[in-house]
Amino acid sequence: MKFIIQRNRLIDSVQDVMKAVSSRTTIPILTGIKIVASDQGITLTGSDSDISIESFIPKEENGDEIVEIKETGGIVLNAKFFGEIVRKLPMDFVEFEVQNHHQTIIRSGKAEFNLNGLDPDEYPHLPQISEDKVFSIPTDLLKSIIRQTVFAVSTSETRPILTGVNWHIENGKLTCTATDSHRLAMRTAPIEMDPSETYNAVIPGKSLIELSKILDDSNTPVEIVMTENQFLFKSKNLLFFSRRLEGNYPDTSRLIPTDSKTELVLQTKEFLHSIDRASLLARGERNNVVKLVTLEEKNIEISSTTPEIGNVVEQIQSESISGEELKISFSAKYMMDALRALEGTEIRIHFTGAMRPFIIRSVDDDSILQLILPVRTF
Amino acid sequence: MKFIIQRNRLIDSVQDVMKAVSSRTTIPILTGIKIVASDQGITLTGSDSDISIESFIPKEENGDEIVEIKETGGIVLNAKFFGEIVRKLPMDFVEFEVQNHHQTIIRSGKAEFNLNGLDPDEYPHLPQISEDKVFSIPTDLLKSIIRQTVFAVSTSETRPILTGVNWHIENGKLTCTATDSHRLAMRTAPIEMDPSETYNAVIPGKSLIELSKILDDSNTPVEIVMTENQFLFKSKNLLFFSRRLEGNYPDTSRLIPTDSKTELVLQTKEFLHSIDRASLLARGERNNVVKLVTLEEKNIEISSTTPEIGNVVEQIQSESISGEELKISFSAKYMMDALRALEGTEIRIHFTGAMRPFIIRSVDDDSILQLILPVRTF
Repeated sequence: MKFIIQRNRLIDSVQDVMKAVSSRTTIPILTGIKIVASDQGITLTGSDSDISIESFIPKEENGDEIVEIKETGGIVLNAKFFGEIVRKLPMDFVEFEVQNHHQTIIRSGKAEFNLNGLDPDEYPHLPQISEDKVFSIPTDLLKSIIRQTVFAVSTSETRPILTGVNWHIENGKLTCTATDSHRLAMRTAPIEMDPSETYNAVIPGKSLIELSKILDDSNTPVEIVMTENQFLFKSKNLLFFSRRLEGNYPDTSRLIPTDSKTELVLQTKEFLHSIDRASLLARGERNNVVKLVTLEEKNIEISSTTPEIGNVVEQIQSESISGEELKISFSAKYMMDALRALEGTEIRIHFTGAMRPFIIRSVDDDSILQLILPVRTF
Repeated sequence: MKFIIQRNRLIDSVQDVMKAVSSRTTIPILTGIKIVASDQGITLTGSDSDISIESFIPKEENGDEIVEIKETGGIVLNAKFFGEIVRKLPMDFVEFEVQNHHQTIIRSGKAEFNLNGLDPDEYPHLPQISEDKVFSIPTDLLKSIIRQTVFAVSTSETRPILTGVNWHIENGKLTCTATDSHRLAMRTAPIEMDPSETYNAVIPGKSLIELSKILDDSNTPVEIVMTENQFLFKSKNLLFFSRRLEGNYPDTSRLIPTDSKTELVLQTKEFLHSIDRASLLARGERNNVVKLVTLEEKNIEISSTTPEIGNVVEQIQSESISGEELKISFSAKYMMDALRALEGTEIRIHFTGAMRPFIIRSVDDDSILQLILPVRTF
């Protein structure tokens, strides 16, 4: 293998595939990045066996030569060293040359690195995907969907299925749900797919977070391929594979109340800042719990106490209050996470009593639902 | 105590005095910030008994009212909570009111915090300083002096005196020296002081690092007061006290070679980047060691090896080489630290053989000297 490549393009691709490489893998070759030079260009691959990322650098783009291939072939190089070296090379172009015994020369200007590589044939093959169920969504929408749900996955391995986000497709609609059993986030989006097809898969939260970091903020479509064991996200020159979590995702629809006893409409930012302030002193017996009480004349009161330190009380004017009076306590963190995930300047909260889960939605957007279980304190 | 204050000014002052507050103190009241309202303005104090910082907020500045004092007095409030609360208050003004039993109300907009304060009379008194030996240097020069020396202090407590920087004044010249016994950094600066006066003190490196964070980049003078046990830095509305380290600082002058067998002149940046690249593979038996070899025609070669991973070799063209041929090994980290501390585009290195300490200076600035002990490998 021998080629010369633009350093900046190489840096970008290495940065992308590095996101799949873990230093704590039990399979030594997976601490490396696989580099393959073909007549079309260079392909880099990184994997921790849960996630695999493949980035392709074409020989030429818009008439600009990016890679000059002198000899095709492949090599696996230690990801950590390779990544650092590429970033610190002195010139705009880099030459790669694989010699006997996988010895690899990396040259740039007068600097010459000689790295011990590994046999690319020993690198695990990426999952074979038969393009079966496919749909596509714009990159920016995909990033929103991830951001608005993934924070609510469980971080505990007690119920592994809850560490993933449930992707459910039915009637041409995608519904993504995440819950750690104390709160739930749900986002829907219409997709172009045969409405008679249904599909269900749980994708690890960690995979979605890494995917989100790689995606840009454009609205170019990402193609999504779903198979028995894998999820594949395809965008320009990039393949992102994630395994699926095994097991059945719990039926969350019964959790979501359909009636409501008290309804509140609030300015999102004002409410968020007030909860944020109250959370500063929400370090009592039950960690991070704030209280909300409805008052006269559309006012509500947010408060919290840390006995040794002090307490905080704040009144907010709501846009409207309807239904029964209410005193309720909940986690400030869950509320702030939910408010940050919602879009729009006003939110509506549907309460069904102090002991029942409550729902938060944007006033003018039904596609996002946030649910929180209250804490018993009154 | 009762006053109303501009929130931004309070945030800045709290941020400054917080740098002296440690959460790991054995004296409970030192986890707090002392706030005193006098007829002149508000004084905030933070201390970990090694460092004490006092910040004054005047009632009025350039005709702008910053504080409205309604009742003088004092209180001590938990620094961590107080700092977070002040940053998150909703309005531009904040009202403070101390009630019975040191209960303190902090009001801003409709938010009201009620904090349990402590008795200000129980807060330790700051050191009493009789203004004895005093000189002043511009803020930006003081910051440079700190930056160019403090990185070389020892991080080990085996010889506590080496964790400080030695400040020595003689013949109207300030000499600051730091060494961890493997390398040494020395910076001199002329000061305006009676040339017959001499003075010597060792200031903890940690104190200087915190001081440096508080100082701005202006050239307004900082006044420095030296006493038996304390160092005091005074700038506008700010007092910074540091204790001195006890014990005698070693005589470092004998360490610095006066002759030289090989002299090299190099472009600072080019050399720094080359050492940085070599350091990537400097993870062999002796951690972080790179080799430098003089070659023909003003070239030098920088190299390093990590046996399992590979090696790197790079040639650099020097501006000039004079004297004997040389092969030498040294710590890449020490060299990069030294090069970053030097000013100017070209440096000169004076070697006295592969086993002897060598000196690095800026070609056109004698005020900074960096010394490194080589590592035996050849």
